[in-house]
Amino acid sequence: MAESWVNSAERIGADLHLELSGPGGRRAALTRALREAVRSGRLVPGTRLPPYRSLAADLGVARNTVADAYAELVAEGWLTARQGSGTRVAPGVTTPQGRQRRDAAAPGAPARVPKKVPPRARGPRHDLRQGTPDASSFPRTAWLASCRRALQQAPNEAFGPGDPAGRPELRQALAAYLARARGVRTEPGRIVICSGFAHALRLLFPRVLRGPLAVESYGLGFHRDLLADASVRTVPLPLDEDGALVDELGRERAVLLTPAHQFPTGGPLHAERRAAVIDWARARGGVILEDDYDGEFRYDRKPVGALQGLDPERVIHIGSVSKSLSPALRLGWMVLPERFVDRVLEVKGEREAWASALDQLSLADFIESGSYDRHVRRMRQRYRGRRDRLVATLAARAPHVEVTGIAAGLHAVLRLPPGTEQSAVKAAVWQGVALDGLAEFRHPEAVTSAPDGLVVGYATPAEHAYGAALDALCDVLPPC
Amino acid sequence: MAESWVNSAERIGADLHLELSGPGGRRAALTRALREAVRSGRLVPGTRLPPYRSLAADLGVARNTVADAYAELVAEGWLTARQGSGTRVAPGVTTPQGRQRRDAAAPGAPARVPKKVPPRARGPRHDLRQGTPDASSFPRTAWLASCRRALQQAPNEAFGPGDPAGRPELRQALAAYLARARGVRTEPGRIVICSGFAHALRLLFPRVLRGPLAVESYGLGFHRDLLADASVRTVPLPLDEDGALVDELGRERAVLLTPAHQFPTGGPLHAERRAAVIDWARARGGVILEDDYDGEFRYDRKPVGALQGLDPERVIHIGSVSKSLSPALRLGWMVLPERFVDRVLEVKGEREAWASALDQLSLADFIESGSYDRHVRRMRQRYRGRRDRLVATLAARAPHVEVTGIAAGLHAVLRLPPGTEQSAVKAAVWQGVALDGLAEFRHPEAVTSAPDGLVVGYATPAEHAYGAALDALCDVLPPC
Repeated sequence: MAESWVNSAERIGADLHLELSGPGGRRAALTRALREAVRSGRLVPGTRLPPYRSLAADLGVARNTVADAYAELVAEGWLTARQGSGTRVAPGVTTPQGRQRRDAAAPGAPARVPKKVPPRARGPRHDLRQGTPDASSFPRTAWLASCRRALQQAPNEAFGPGDPAGRPELRQALAAYLARARGVRTEPGRIVICSGFAHALRLLFPRVLRGPLAVESYGLGFHRDLLADASVRTVPLPLDEDGALVDELGRERAVLLTPAHQFPTGGPLHAERRAAVIDWARARGGVILEDDYDGEFRYDRKPVGALQGLDPERVIHIGSVSKSLSPALRLGWMVLPERFVDRVLEVKGEREAWASALDQLSLADFIESGSYDRHVRRMRQRYRGRRDRLVATLAARAPHVEVTGIAAGLHAVLRLPPGTEQSAVKAAVWQGVALDGLAEFRHPEAVTSAPDGLVVGYATPAEHAYGAALDALCDVLPPC
Repeated sequence: MAESWVNSAERIGADLHLELSGPGGRRAALTRALREAVRSGRLVPGTRLPPYRSLAADLGVARNTVADAYAELVAEGWLTARQGSGTRVAPGVTTPQGRQRRDAAAPGAPARVPKKVPPRARGPRHDLRQGTPDASSFPRTAWLASCRRALQQAPNEAFGPGDPAGRPELRQALAAYLARARGVRTEPGRIVICSGFAHALRLLFPRVLRGPLAVESYGLGFHRDLLADASVRTVPLPLDEDGALVDELGRERAVLLTPAHQFPTGGPLHAERRAAVIDWARARGGVILEDDYDGEFRYDRKPVGALQGLDPERVIHIGSVSKSLSPALRLGWMVLPERFVDRVLEVKGEREAWASALDQLSLADFIESGSYDRHVRRMRQRYRGRRDRLVATLAARAPHVEVTGIAAGLHAVLRLPPGTEQSAVKAAVWQGVALDGLAEFRHPEAVTSAPDGLVVGYATPAEHAYGAALDALCDVLPPC
């Protein structure tokens, strides 16, 4: 069988003894295996199934694969999902609601598997996940104008294979923009265009920098996973109200920080800590990775400049348009200390220059024509309004829930009463509100306290849908 | 020193005992190390330096890094490069022409290194490298029209994070186009958008497919290197006039072929071989990777359909717009057997969906509006004319040099008299003609004969520059 040599990590689930095989991909295989385990009585009614994350780790599949398989089986009546009690085998499941369905063959008979699972209704009713801007606000007209000028003015070689560093027009535009808007000190020759922060990490590790890498004890699990894939160990730095405790940097020679707006907890790195981490880098030959993911969006005052401005030879400044414009463009940049430029280009060259040259040229024009500033100003206004509305709504309807962090960015953290995060997250799933608990972002080796909270992305819904999303959010918060 | 923990493979050059360290990147370090080795007398006048490729492999740097360092030192007078005798230490080099220059410090004194090497004149005078279309022919107006319609019609979610499979509009358009133009049998759900062939390989190996992978004994070294990086062993299949000897497939469970137009030698895979490799895949549970890199460009007859059409469950069909439109768009696709779709999406999801959604939408419109067909027809006409002109020019001026392969694609192989390839390649360097020798494409473990030849990309020059490029080409060919 062809499957035998497919490297798909078809291991046996540690606890459930699930075997993922047969046609139709891993989600279908997992759904089938779970269904069979219930049908055969190996999993008895009332049994609690492992959390998505654990089963996903056991089986070596994506969390979404597990989530989808569970959802499928809930829909078929084999499993139940109830707030506060996780996913369980449904009662009386030897004759579930779905018994008459084509999937529910008589015991002993081989389960007949549908060739194609009909697509389920997708997506939550209210999307309050962090990480993306309001897609309905993309400045279509202004972007098209930039496309037009870019296509008219581009030299012919722009349509050739291209330079791994990125288009010179864009590097020029960014050098000026980043100096003006973020206090970044650079010249175009030290900017390398990439597809976003994750791409930057992949270019840097392990071929330009080596681990271990100190990281803030809260951050994106996706980045930690990506570093783990590159065999880079991440060491969590504790956080307090002034940001990461950079005094506790140990033997690491690199640290990843979100100085403008700690992700996701929401504080800025204190000026003394900024100075201290630069001192550390100078004294120890260390390098600081600055993830400036939402630095343009500060609502209470003018944004603090980038850490990079303090010492361009010690900081790799990384940004993108994913929050300010759209993640669909897949455009980001690294501003590099001079000693890293050649090596990064060597690695990038070998791996192809990913970002579309036409989008690069359009972005260069978009910045230089002032459209980027106008768009950022407009969105700053809008997101500020949304944050204010979130704060006001909670003050009125859930005064025991505190909005923490500075007035900045595209998300806020709601601090919850101790012990209530998990049930709030489950209530959200139940109510069709997509959001994440704060625990989701905690480094597994973090040692400091783990407060309960929800991370609410207020930028994601379209303007007209935001009110309903806030109402739904209030409904999933723990009672006073 | 910060450099100590930078993972830059700063090994000692095996023969030259070069140490790459100090400021300014690897090219600067290599230049400095070589200059110092000559200056100190460790390398005596007349010594032949290793070929780019060998020294690059020894030092773990890119070939271009070595090439640039050599060129720099030739320009400074420390080295000489002569046709037929490689790069050597210049005679009388203890007082080279550059002796008075700031780099040539007195023996014993530390070499003063310029902060920035002034940029050298870049690029050859005539570019006949294979692999890229005529960048001056990019259909700017039609593409802008597609951008406009795409931006007007895109749903809001197109500006959100996106689906790793790619935009549905583009997959729909491609399914119809590939069926019509290339005989591919598929539906949109089995198409996954990627950034081009190299990206497809990276997605497939080693996480969806495992090596060893059989490959044609001539192919792109870049692809072999990329596979080697993923720890995939490639096993060369001999070629004859009917294409790869697929009967010699051994224990491999996957084979990479260029059935429409063997790259670079230029023959199509014979119908019997096409059938035989499908039989092999069915009997052995094998999979065929079809690199359809220039399938649309056949000049003597209608293109033969894709191999994939013979058995969509056994062939992964891979294509891109890099030859037909522009490599600057970074847009390609995989047409997958059903059993691979979920796994590829899982791998792709983890690695981000790279291709710009706006370019994907524009391409969908470009295809559906008929602009793609019109552009391909126009370019087919143009490249056909160029190939005819190449054949006619050689017939007149170098009748001993044969143009081999079918009338197709964007390149041709010129068969040279035995033993003349290397000197022709060197003559080309000397004359500012960029092209590659056939040996460049040979699998290092290939066992069949290694004919002498040049691979000439006739698509790369702009239309007005093609005549001069052909003249220059004739000048570097070996005499009759």
